[in-house]
Amino acid sequence: MSQQAIGVIGMAVMGKNLALNIESRGHAVSIFNRSRTRTDEVIAEHRDKRLVPAYTLQEFVDSLEKPRRILLMVKAGEPTDDTIEQLKPLLDKGDILIDGGNTNFKDTIRRNQELAKAGLHFIGTGVSGGEEGALHGPSIMPGGPRDAYDLVAPILTEIAARAKDGAPCVAYMGPDGAGHYVKMVHNGIEYGDMQLIAESYAVLKHVLGLSNSELAGVYHDWNAGELDSYLIEITAKIFGKKDEKTGKDLIDVILDRAAQKGTGKWTSQSALDLGVPLPLITESVFARVLSSLKEERVAASKQLAGPQPKAFDGERDAFIAAVGRALYLSKIVSYAQGFAQLRAASDEYDWNLDYGAIARIWRGGCIIRARFLQNITDAYARDSSLANLLLAPYFRDVAADYQSSLRDVVCAAIAAGVAVPCFSSAIAYYDGYRSERLPANLLQAQRDFFGAHTFERVDEKGSFHEEWN
Amino acid sequence: MSQQAIGVIGMAVMGKNLALNIESRGHAVSIFNRSRTRTDEVIAEHRDKRLVPAYTLQEFVDSLEKPRRILLMVKAGEPTDDTIEQLKPLLDKGDILIDGGNTNFKDTIRRNQELAKAGLHFIGTGVSGGEEGALHGPSIMPGGPRDAYDLVAPILTEIAARAKDGAPCVAYMGPDGAGHYVKMVHNGIEYGDMQLIAESYAVLKHVLGLSNSELAGVYHDWNAGELDSYLIEITAKIFGKKDEKTGKDLIDVILDRAAQKGTGKWTSQSALDLGVPLPLITESVFARVLSSLKEERVAASKQLAGPQPKAFDGERDAFIAAVGRALYLSKIVSYAQGFAQLRAASDEYDWNLDYGAIARIWRGGCIIRARFLQNITDAYARDSSLANLLLAPYFRDVAADYQSSLRDVVCAAIAAGVAVPCFSSAIAYYDGYRSERLPANLLQAQRDFFGAHTFERVDEKGSFHEEWN
Repeated sequence: MSQQAIGVIGMAVMGKNLALNIESRGHAVSIFNRSRTRTDEVIAEHRDKRLVPAYTLQEFVDSLEKPRRILLMVKAGEPTDDTIEQLKPLLDKGDILIDGGNTNFKDTIRRNQELAKAGLHFIGTGVSGGEEGALHGPSIMPGGPRDAYDLVAPILTEIAARAKDGAPCVAYMGPDGAGHYVKMVHNGIEYGDMQLIAESYAVLKHVLGLSNSELAGVYHDWNAGELDSYLIEITAKIFGKKDEKTGKDLIDVILDRAAQKGTGKWTSQSALDLGVPLPLITESVFARVLSSLKEERVAASKQLAGPQPKAFDGERDAFIAAVGRALYLSKIVSYAQGFAQLRAASDEYDWNLDYGAIARIWRGGCIIRARFLQNITDAYARDSSLANLLLAPYFRDVAADYQSSLRDVVCAAIAAGVAVPCFSSAIAYYDGYRSERLPANLLQAQRDFFGAHTFERVDEKGSFHEEWN
Repeated sequence: MSQQAIGVIGMAVMGKNLALNIESRGHAVSIFNRSRTRTDEVIAEHRDKRLVPAYTLQEFVDSLEKPRRILLMVKAGEPTDDTIEQLKPLLDKGDILIDGGNTNFKDTIRRNQELAKAGLHFIGTGVSGGEEGALHGPSIMPGGPRDAYDLVAPILTEIAARAKDGAPCVAYMGPDGAGHYVKMVHNGIEYGDMQLIAESYAVLKHVLGLSNSELAGVYHDWNAGELDSYLIEITAKIFGKKDEKTGKDLIDVILDRAAQKGTGKWTSQSALDLGVPLPLITESVFARVLSSLKEERVAASKQLAGPQPKAFDGERDAFIAAVGRALYLSKIVSYAQGFAQLRAASDEYDWNLDYGAIARIWRGGCIIRARFLQNITDAYARDSSLANLLLAPYFRDVAADYQSSLRDVVCAAIAAGVAVPCFSSAIAYYDGYRSERLPANLLQAQRDFFGAHTFERVDEKGSFHEEWN
């Protein structure tokens, strides 16, 4: 019986598409699914592909070359643990498990330790790009033992997306949980990007009164410039889409209640644990939560007063351009926060993350792929120890040029009663970060007043306590 | 040998002061501390008080009437677990342990379950008011088995603060972790209150150029009105304080790097877990973190551009009044978020929290005590199932009157380059909450576009997926 170089467990859409992607690069692939029916379905749908079904884990394991390479695409959490427990007795030392699910990095750290004791390698890898990415080339963020990574690197490199310069969108992120951590922050950044675009939509719609077709044009135009990105591209398409049932613009038929799967929340919770400021992404998580309170909002809209509606009396095109600049600078601020979080995590968990490489593999395949990731890569190439992206010359100069537009847009939105939690959080962070002196001296005075928590002084080292009364 | 009705373990300042408070109400109190020296110190300092030292836990336990009432005032986390483990074999069924530390509510839930198995009662109680409150009357938030609470209620009621109407600031919060949860949210709200005051300070200082003595006057005046609260009162005093070493105003000598002990962070993390929007308190936590990056900020201040400085050209007194209104409305928004979180937690953990009672016991003793807590108590007396405080007539009317001031102040701050993360988060939440329609329809369209996550429709129930391409 011939053996395969790799097998995939879990034939939901992501697992199936990754298997097909691997197959398309010239490899036969063993596949296994908990329910036999699904395996048969996949085989039936893809008779022309070299997918080799296994109906027991023993059969699956026996079908693989050693050291075995097994890509787990099962539900994060308990189902992943269960699958690993069932596999463990069937494996040999040196075999490699690759978890490609949206796993919490703490679970990945734990599994790395547990499996290392059994002589098994565990690679936790982020995979971004949705169904299409999985099939044609995702961005891949693997973490785990370096020597094990080297054994799977050729296949991961083959199936990864290519950036515009042809570079594969995969790189070794670091030990144990590094890959899943980077993927988590990627998703947090995705929450921020999406909410920022949503706020630009709200401002253009409610302040300027743009129609959906005008909005489609604006995002289409923006996608030709510095905002060029997958999310802006699909936003333009979304505004152009008709609903077949009603003939209306589809965007107006979609309920404004956003769902989430938890990785944005994890990103914020980790930032809080690390003590690194991540207000923009966190506001975007809360914005989704607030949107989900649809019935409460509808009731509140009838009771809570807002500003008097006022016709826009400025220059329309200039304002649209200002919104574009506000969006770009806010996006820069969000990435500055996200990369600062990566730096804090790298220090905390000893991952030695390569920030330039992270930006490089996000240039293609993944949901947040965008032209400006090249600028981030360049910034870290210039200075790998950059404390904050805002300090890189390119971003610093954009900020200098665009900050007044961001201020204008936030104030126009606030004056019009349009909620812009992430735009306003962006300018607050920018102004806070560039403040030599913040009013936190008052916080320290208060804390010392009511709790004798002591304070530091500007003119002398040490902890001081005042008898305030 | 006579026995005492209650004993206190842990003679750090909070434990000692609570022991003295209990003693001052006519009870002899057994005391124990891990290090004998500290016990002897406390006894030596307070020879005229009926504090009865014990030098072993056995001696301590033997000195108490049954059922024993033991107040634990040791460090949260492992030290508390260690003390409980050592005590357990010495106790009898029906004895009551009261943990008065800043314990994470999840630990309290766990300990409740573990000790219930051993026939012991565990009460986790929040205690707020700092050293002075502990000594003269704190706000007390106990949670645990109701029958055990009834056995300690008389003493807790004696030592609690009194509100202005004479009511004791203690009430049964609910089962297991309810008390520590309420205390955690209290602390989160305290973070928000402090940051809002700090932002009002920054605006008055940087936009209007108020001196410290002018600031002292402003906060003093505010404390005579609807902003009347302990934190505003001490803020006025802080601005009037001179530094003895340099003769300067002390506020200007204190370093602007805020510290924290973690309860604000827990509040935000819990809100994220519960899926309830808590952006304002979370921004205040991140504002502290950002303030702690002092060296980075100093470096960034030399590189990142802000707006051109402009002299204030409005009416000074009118602007000061607008800042006061902005502060009051932002504070209302923050409490609306905090109480919504309490409601979500009550549902999640089956606590049946009494929101009116919570506001009532915060009226005295604790750090966030304020006149306006009476308005919250009144709002819940009127409607105990209120979805959001903003919808109560009093708060709704304040919002209607003050929202334009909040908008003006945020925009003035942003135009001047002054960071106001919590003020701007307040208006974003207000506008988001009162939005019948948010731009989250675009998020759902994007999620369905790239990940086939489906969306709901405004005109039909169900989940829908579009073939976008």
